[in-house]
Amino acid sequence: MVAIEVAELSTNGLSKVVEQFASVGLSKVAVSDSHAENSRYFGGWKAYDVNPYDELTNPNGVIQMGLAENQVSFDLLEDYLEKHSESPATAPKNGISKFRENAFFQDYHGLLTFRKAMASFMESIREGRVKFDPERVVLTAGATAANELITFVLADPGDALLIPTPYYPGFDRDLRWRTGVEIVPVHCDSSNDFQVTPKALEEAFNKATSMNIKVRGLLLTNPSNPLGTSMQRSILEEILNFAAQKNIHLVVDEIYSGSVFSSSEFISISEILEARNYKDAERVHIVYSLSKDLGIPGFRIGTIYSYNDHVVTTARRMSSFSLISSHSQHLFASMLLDTEFTKIYIQTNRERLRKRNEMITQGLKKAGIDCLKGNAGLFVWMNLSPFLGDNPTIEGEIELWESFVHEVKLNISPGSSCHCSEPGWFRVCFANMSEKTLDVALSRIHAFMEKRGKLE
Amino acid sequence: MVAIEVAELSTNGLSKVVEQFASVGLSKVAVSDSHAENSRYFGGWKAYDVNPYDELTNPNGVIQMGLAENQVSFDLLEDYLEKHSESPATAPKNGISKFRENAFFQDYHGLLTFRKAMASFMESIREGRVKFDPERVVLTAGATAANELITFVLADPGDALLIPTPYYPGFDRDLRWRTGVEIVPVHCDSSNDFQVTPKALEEAFNKATSMNIKVRGLLLTNPSNPLGTSMQRSILEEILNFAAQKNIHLVVDEIYSGSVFSSSEFISISEILEARNYKDAERVHIVYSLSKDLGIPGFRIGTIYSYNDHVVTTARRMSSFSLISSHSQHLFASMLLDTEFTKIYIQTNRERLRKRNEMITQGLKKAGIDCLKGNAGLFVWMNLSPFLGDNPTIEGEIELWESFVHEVKLNISPGSSCHCSEPGWFRVCFANMSEKTLDVALSRIHAFMEKRGKLE
Repeated sequence: MVAIEVAELSTNGLSKVVEQFASVGLSKVAVSDSHAENSRYFGGWKAYDVNPYDELTNPNGVIQMGLAENQVSFDLLEDYLEKHSESPATAPKNGISKFRENAFFQDYHGLLTFRKAMASFMESIREGRVKFDPERVVLTAGATAANELITFVLADPGDALLIPTPYYPGFDRDLRWRTGVEIVPVHCDSSNDFQVTPKALEEAFNKATSMNIKVRGLLLTNPSNPLGTSMQRSILEEILNFAAQKNIHLVVDEIYSGSVFSSSEFISISEILEARNYKDAERVHIVYSLSKDLGIPGFRIGTIYSYNDHVVTTARRMSSFSLISSHSQHLFASMLLDTEFTKIYIQTNRERLRKRNEMITQGLKKAGIDCLKGNAGLFVWMNLSPFLGDNPTIEGEIELWESFVHEVKLNISPGSSCHCSEPGWFRVCFANMSEKTLDVALSRIHAFMEKRGKLE
Repeated sequence: MVAIEVAELSTNGLSKVVEQFASVGLSKVAVSDSHAENSRYFGGWKAYDVNPYDELTNPNGVIQMGLAENQVSFDLLEDYLEKHSESPATAPKNGISKFRENAFFQDYHGLLTFRKAMASFMESIREGRVKFDPERVVLTAGATAANELITFVLADPGDALLIPTPYYPGFDRDLRWRTGVEIVPVHCDSSNDFQVTPKALEEAFNKATSMNIKVRGLLLTNPSNPLGTSMQRSILEEILNFAAQKNIHLVVDEIYSGSVFSSSEFISISEILEARNYKDAERVHIVYSLSKDLGIPGFRIGTIYSYNDHVVTTARRMSSFSLISSHSQHLFASMLLDTEFTKIYIQTNRERLRKRNEMITQGLKKAGIDCLKGNAGLFVWMNLSPFLGDNPTIEGEIELWESFVHEVKLNISPGSSCHCSEPGWFRVCFANMSEKTLDVALSRIHAFMEKRGKLE
């Protein structure tokens, strides 16, 4: 998931060599709006970009709570790399310096040692309950590239992927824009805490079929972004059964798997497969990335782990369009293979995120606001539906959102941008700032709710 | 241009969790052969992969002359980075360590300082004859990604790009596979040293039109891969006129612009535009990369420089699927901005490549073989057509190629893999090995030709 800076390229910023708008045409993809940047998810970032909060220099600025970034465990990485760092041009080793090795290495298989490191880290997150084969690790420049790539492999233009709502707004771009693939939402709601049901799956599938759209797969995020919850074993079982019954693929984006507050609460689709002796595995593909759990999106390290040989071969070939710098692969390989370190990192990270989650949910509680009970991720799913007043609609939600962005000066993400079918829910990120800034945000919300209470 | 290891993923290498071939279908893109790995261009790599030459351990192995990699100026980079290197987790600067900055930075605009560095380096290569605006520099993970991306922006599935032959075999994958765009060859031949003519352009355009294929652009490589020649000003002018007349785009892949042996011999399309006061600039897009001129493909650093505002905006959004690690951006930014260093590097690199070219052309001459007179690149275009004997056909060329790969044990690229319309031409790379290894290769060719002479 790549942060998008939404400010349009103004012609002012560009050298004025082209006076008029180009008369030569571009592709349909280029002129379509499937880049999704007009979504309010990205829209709120504009307000932040032009007036960003800073404790000292701009204390009345907008606080960015729309960015799912993990900055709470960064000190651990820095300490480790400080102790184990090498200069980029190290002394020759076997006559070849590491820099030279980095520079020339461009094989789309990636460094074997790094694939082993990724497999090992994914095993550590699952506390060794499953094994990952480095030969099935396909490397991509981030999960954004991974999600697009797997869509290219599984579906033709006009085909669809089912996705439970609410879902990450970036999928509207990543899965659709260049692939021409459609997303058919599987509507979930608060009546059962937004859990996926067989009924909702059937309805979405039938809806697609009735529209003559071929469903090629189902994409889950587990833990869910934006819900901040992990999926129960029984639900995962039902979903896999559904995929098998309909003969479709199941892609599970597990990029927050190391951000579940307690390891025992996360069940990976890989564990379900293991328990079934890998029956139906050929339709299952896992997307992972280091961006969220390690908080290093700038390094662009993502992966597709597929149980399907043909998908592995094809995805690896396609990864030519999105390779990870060998420089970055080298930097993290030994750290991820150091299981003593990763164990401590994962434990500490889980605990710190749990505390942050507690801090924000309790703070919101004091302001009279409930959240969906979460156990994972870098955000809470905040329920403002009781405060929509006499306008319990998407329009009412957007009105409230505008107040949050422009009055309270917090950029949060409205549920409608995540295709939530119930108005009044918002995703609020808590891990991309200091505790002090989070306190400021909570105070602002408190004050806003008090004022609103008085007004009502 | 990303090196591809062609060895298929054998099921032996994969954990045996999936016993049978997947019954669940994949996309048309996934099952098509437009990944182009069945091309003989990649095929020759297999022979190298299973039996690679090593001076000491495998002196009878296959020498890889099919890889356009620049290893002749690497010492200069190493020296510079050794002197200017920082550890990845440097001491805090303004309270934020550089590592932290790298880790969090994921904006698809890329680091402004790095865009400035790319613009500056591109200016240095052209000895300041043109200026590049950092706001027009779109960053991509290598030229492979850049070429695919610009195709997505310019053409719809089923549309075509014209490309003069012979051309880089990887284009068959990069421009076609996921985009669904076609390549219509503009046939060039030895009668005028493979130069592009208005007649050949018209013929290709008319052929496409007669097949009801919409031509959206023309893609050149200048300097040419595989010819190793740079284009004359008058021809570039004609080509731009042609693009304007047909109202199509002109993409110029200038990734070897710093590998022309003398600066004065390279004319960038940007210079043609400057001379025209940027008339028609909105249809021109330059692809560049650090992989060839600096010899650092592993870092995945490419760029699209477009004069069209809409293309810049759209391409930047699309670059989300193919971002450059901020870690790698940081590493090279200051080096590329150090014009004192880049000036020396470019001069030295040009001179060393010129010498290598001389070494191989003279060595081949002694073996009775002529090459197209080249002035650029990491390869020569070798003419073996006089030696096809009574089989002056593509089949004859392939027969000769098989001898080269399996008898002479040199992996070279047959012209037919570059869509050359005349049989008997081969691309031979000379910069990815030591002079000593090049000597071994030349001796082998000499011996082969002698033996052949005796046989005839």
